[in-house]
Amino acid sequence: MRLENDLLLRAARGEKTERPPVWVMRQAGRILAEYRATRAQAGSFIGLVKNPQLAAEVTVQPVDILGVDAAIIFSDILVIPEAMGLPYQMDEGKGPFFPKTIQNLKDVENLDLSNINNHLTYVSEAIEATLHKLQGRVPLIGFAGAPWTIFCYMIEGKGSKEFSLARKMLVQQPMLAESLLTKITDATIAYLQSQIKAGIHLFQLFDSWAGVLNAELYQTMIIPHVSRILSSAPPHIPTTFFAKGAHYAAKSIQTLNCNVIGLDWTMDPAWAKNQFPNKTLQGNLDPAVLYGTDETIRTSTEKLLSEFGEHPYIANLGHGVYPDIDPKKLKIFIETIQKS
Amino acid sequence: MRLENDLLLRAARGEKTERPPVWVMRQAGRILAEYRATRAQAGSFIGLVKNPQLAAEVTVQPVDILGVDAAIIFSDILVIPEAMGLPYQMDEGKGPFFPKTIQNLKDVENLDLSNINNHLTYVSEAIEATLHKLQGRVPLIGFAGAPWTIFCYMIEGKGSKEFSLARKMLVQQPMLAESLLTKITDATIAYLQSQIKAGIHLFQLFDSWAGVLNAELYQTMIIPHVSRILSSAPPHIPTTFFAKGAHYAAKSIQTLNCNVIGLDWTMDPAWAKNQFPNKTLQGNLDPAVLYGTDETIRTSTEKLLSEFGEHPYIANLGHGVYPDIDPKKLKIFIETIQKS
Repeated sequence: MRLENDLLLRAARGEKTERPPVWVMRQAGRILAEYRATRAQAGSFIGLVKNPQLAAEVTVQPVDILGVDAAIIFSDILVIPEAMGLPYQMDEGKGPFFPKTIQNLKDVENLDLSNINNHLTYVSEAIEATLHKLQGRVPLIGFAGAPWTIFCYMIEGKGSKEFSLARKMLVQQPMLAESLLTKITDATIAYLQSQIKAGIHLFQLFDSWAGVLNAELYQTMIIPHVSRILSSAPPHIPTTFFAKGAHYAAKSIQTLNCNVIGLDWTMDPAWAKNQFPNKTLQGNLDPAVLYGTDETIRTSTEKLLSEFGEHPYIANLGHGVYPDIDPKKLKIFIETIQKS
Repeated sequence: MRLENDLLLRAARGEKTERPPVWVMRQAGRILAEYRATRAQAGSFIGLVKNPQLAAEVTVQPVDILGVDAAIIFSDILVIPEAMGLPYQMDEGKGPFFPKTIQNLKDVENLDLSNINNHLTYVSEAIEATLHKLQGRVPLIGFAGAPWTIFCYMIEGKGSKEFSLARKMLVQQPMLAESLLTKITDATIAYLQSQIKAGIHLFQLFDSWAGVLNAELYQTMIIPHVSRILSSAPPHIPTTFFAKGAHYAAKSIQTLNCNVIGLDWTMDPAWAKNQFPNKTLQGNLDPAVLYGTDETIRTSTEKLLSEFGEHPYIANLGHGVYPDIDPKKLKIFIETIQKS
């Protein structure tokens, strides 16, 4: 099906577009009353992730309500460990929790890669249901967590400020770490293929905890896995890599075979254009700007546009939208981009 | 009293030293069995902070046991909100918790600055007791939390990944935020004066949550307060500013009137030498390096030394030592510096 609005894909490929496309991380989420209603119907966050019809419904909500230029499939990065045999719980306000974590080589060997996509049929079905609802209005983004971020959760079992246990594993047991990262990478490549088969238009890899590593470890132990995943995408599927906090790893990130680099809000646009001259850039607006007045939101958005200038750019926040943001404020950001 | 070892002070002032001095953030802490024993005697973390004799004891332990070139007074950054009328609890493994937080202007007005140093007599007494125990062997570092970090805790009441409530306050209620930041700054200046009077040799300001802000907000709303505190130190007390995660704010940090800039482990030494040409640099080793073998710790430490080269440098980690690090590993880092 031909897309009515393919701004995202053209910008991702570095083409000059009439204006930047705009979408927002966590646009399908708690900020929308409609999302909260659908989630209540599903019973829980994980229940919603596993229900293809309801997941498709919340995926399409921001397209209908906010008018964004892309949908992103409603799912969770932690479906990968679960599909490998490490289930998790999601407690409201507390984040994810894994009752069982990876402690030793035997635990890694026990992870089962043979059935990844059977376990994840609900994601493919949600993608198909979403495409049906979208009817080609905007592209659909698929995604996964990057190997390091998934590794962090599988080792620590929950969020952490500095993930020192996961880093200890990298340093003290590099062979074990490498073996776990390889399994996560293999599973993610299979998952990416199934998302492409189901019909996604662009694939984004999120390295949410990249910021806790150092330049040498990131380059030697993490980048090769990220590279393998991104290089496994066929040429017709553009790819985006977003490593939050990884300002220190720009040089190795620039070597990746991907189209788009996501920027958090601490990264300076001028610096980013210089570091990633041949990549499309995405994101960067401080999510806290949306707590401001209509006027300051407009001014900050216009400043953002002028800073990226002629560089291929996909407008977005520097991280997910905060759950207590008024959707009207988000709409001001989106409309300012769309009127530009 | 004349100091036997004044390497820290000479390096802080940018003088050429025979080798870099070395100390470690959280050197007086859970890694040492002796600390754990003294803390058990005190009954709790806050009990230890408020007991001058026991606080002095743990302050001196790393000088005796690890042979570091400086002591840092054992205390907590959150004594400032407590002295202003906002008490907190410290739950093992959970971090600090404030039962009451700052919600509105009335809450800010109710903060009492008239008695800061009476409330904090226990810190002055701990400094005096420490100096007595040290007998001039090494310098004693005093410290406080920077206004933004203290503000974060006073608004949110506990740790957070992105401190979005505190950032919301900066954006939505800038006058209220400014008024709270000013009170914290005034209290911190009074506290710094009392630490100097008690006899500290160098003062360090910790902005642990600097990494969640953006360049514009940090420069316009935070730097003026930091600057006021650092400029209030008399010329004979060198000052250090450590803003973890604030790579994006290097330009405004460079304008500060301080001697030393602390570096986290994501900051590249070559970049830092370039950004802060006239400041002594401190820190930078990834704390996770201490999970490695003796050999890798030595190699990483030697690499660190060669990267800072001739630039005035104080060896330290890029953040506090992790509580499960073997003190023998820390000693390898310290001895590698001291043999250099």
